Amino acid sequence: MDATIALDAMGGDHGPQVVVPAALRMLKKHPELKLILVGDSAQIASFIGNQDAPVQQRLSVHHASQVVAMNESPAKALRLKKDSSMRVAINLVKSGDAQACVSAGNTGALMATARFVLKTLPHIDRPAICTALPTKTGHTHMLDLGANVDSTAEHLLQFSVMGSVLTEAVDNLPNPRVGLLNIGEEDMKGNEQVKKAALLLEEAAINYIGFVEGDDIFKGTVDVIVCDGFVGNVALKTSEGVAQMITHYVKQAFKRNLLTKIAALFALPVIKTLRRQIDPRRYNGASLLGLQGIVIKSHGGADELAFTYAISEAIREVEKSVPTQISHQLDAILGN
Amino acid sequence: MDATIALDAMGGDHGPQVVVPAALRMLKKHPELKLILVGDSAQIASFIGNQDAPVQQRLSVHHASQVVAMNESPAKALRLKKDSSMRVAINLVKSGDAQACVSAGNTGALMATARFVLKTLPHIDRPAICTALPTKTGHTHMLDLGANVDSTAEHLLQFSVMGSVLTEAVDNLPNPRVGLLNIGEEDMKGNEQVKKAALLLEEAAINYIGFVEGDDIFKGTVDVIVCDGFVGNVALKTSEGVAQMITHYVKQAFKRNLLTKIAALFALPVIKTLRRQIDPRRYNGASLLGLQGIVIKSHGGADELAFTYAISEAIREVEKSVPTQISHQLDAILGN
Repeated sequence: MDATIALDAMGGDHGPQVVVPAALRMLKKHPELKLILVGDSAQIASFIGNQDAPVQQRLSVHHASQVVAMNESPAKALRLKKDSSMRVAINLVKSGDAQACVSAGNTGALMATARFVLKTLPHIDRPAICTALPTKTGHTHMLDLGANVDSTAEHLLQFSVMGSVLTEAVDNLPNPRVGLLNIGEEDMKGNEQVKKAALLLEEAAINYIGFVEGDDIFKGTVDVIVCDGFVGNVALKTSEGVAQMITHYVKQAFKRNLLTKIAALFALPVIKTLRRQIDPRRYNGASLLGLQGIVIKSHGGADELAFTYAISEAIREVEKSVPTQISHQLDAILGN
Repeated sequence: MDATIALDAMGGDHGPQVVVPAALRMLKKHPELKLILVGDSAQIASFIGNQDAPVQQRLSVHHASQVVAMNESPAKALRLKKDSSMRVAINLVKSGDAQACVSAGNTGALMATARFVLKTLPHIDRPAICTALPTKTGHTHMLDLGANVDSTAEHLLQFSVMGSVLTEAVDNLPNPRVGLLNIGEEDMKGNEQVKKAALLLEEAAINYIGFVEGDDIFKGTVDVIVCDGFVGNVALKTSEGVAQMITHYVKQAFKRNLLTKIAALFALPVIKTLRRQIDPRRYNGASLLGLQGIVIKSHGGADELAFTYAISEAIREVEKSVPTQISHQLDAILGN
């Protein structure tokens, strides 16, 4: 894997403190990988320290003088932050100096900037955000997770094709099962966009399995879940909220008294295994699909381990040339 | 509490097998409560058996010859099932023979029939489905959960008033905090309906606290969560799905080997406490709000315990005359 990936070293809640150690860890793990750290070169250097030559040679720093704030409006970031670490990282993808970029920065600004710099693929009206989520049997991919609101049936079809191609590529899974998120499995249920999208998906050359409901996301019975970004974002955040609440109750229950604390000692190894299995950090790294280039969004609060998963997602998408594959599939399905 | 409540004894996956024992349990618990079991009188009688006079006196059976199937279309149920247990139970509310009804039957048919028979309150375009959900600190109410798709800003305002009144009444909680479900807390985020609804809610005489996100549902920081029915239904089902997946992983983790099985023995009392705390059966009983009468929807798969919670919800709403209170509040907020 001799990919070169640009990292927005200043993005996210922790900036270079997390991004640089994550980068070093990945360089040690992947002997062919090259990384470009984009951002304040002095700050970045202070986190690199002394590295062995085999790592040092594959790591470069690209200075950028500005940082996009986590709460900055996308329009303002686009207009006023032309030398931001985020924008420069995307520019490196545009120029071909990098094959992908990863940022933990502000999602809206990242999407707006990536769209402005890289442009969308032919047949794509709106890029979408896609991530993997854990299921009872493995994982599934879901999109859109918030890039769009009020998606039309045609947008949902575009998301379906993108999600199907991504899943087939990164999971080596031929013909992934694509489901349309709805509020019932019967044909008559749902809103107009979803009903119309179902008709389009039935005709498309993807493995469309029909409507799925919110609880189907985690069953392992569908590989790609397609929905409007408003709905997808609410579903994603809701699932995070439930997991946090359950964790809270588990902690409380084991802390209650001496007996429960003893029980906790016995249960600890099991709980640790469990936490590893559904550790959200393993699912860090959402793809901005539909662009002429690979852009991966890390969670803003990602720690070092979580950020390495976002870099891994970038590597997989570079290896499989995901944008090119999406483009071919869109050509085949949506005409020339 | 001398309320009379009609129960659709044939509704749900289990019909009288669950509804009748639940009814008997509630009659024993509430010495003033009166219940009318509606449905096939022979079947119902076989589940009643011999009861003490104090229970028997407060239990009556009202025969209905038809049953609405769980997958029957609302339009068909409305047209062809005029003597269904569901419809007759609603008729008893309309005639004043009962102050509320509870059904575990098909949600679409229940909503359509209730709306047709009871009519909506003045100022209400569309009734909404509202239920309590567990949070880290207690519970919250959320609506709409699937009665409506494509809700306008005005519908969201109506839902807000109804949810606020219900929560204040059944939780004895003055000025409940009302949040609008969105995909970000910033003003610029969200779809047009939500942005417009926010402006209406700011002006209304309710305790509107602003936008909330999916993960806020379970934090205990908001008492009423308002959203479109498509979004709410997806969020509800998603939360059920996450909880099921986590339960699945917990079971797997404790079953892995001899050591984990020993750990399970120690953890069992804690797990039992936990299951009780977030037992979804405790939250069974969704309110169909906005009607001229009290209609409670039990989960179709409810067991005896779960069904008693739906009856309890009906009792609370009768005690507090929820529809009358909603009507007054709507008059005050939306004019005469």
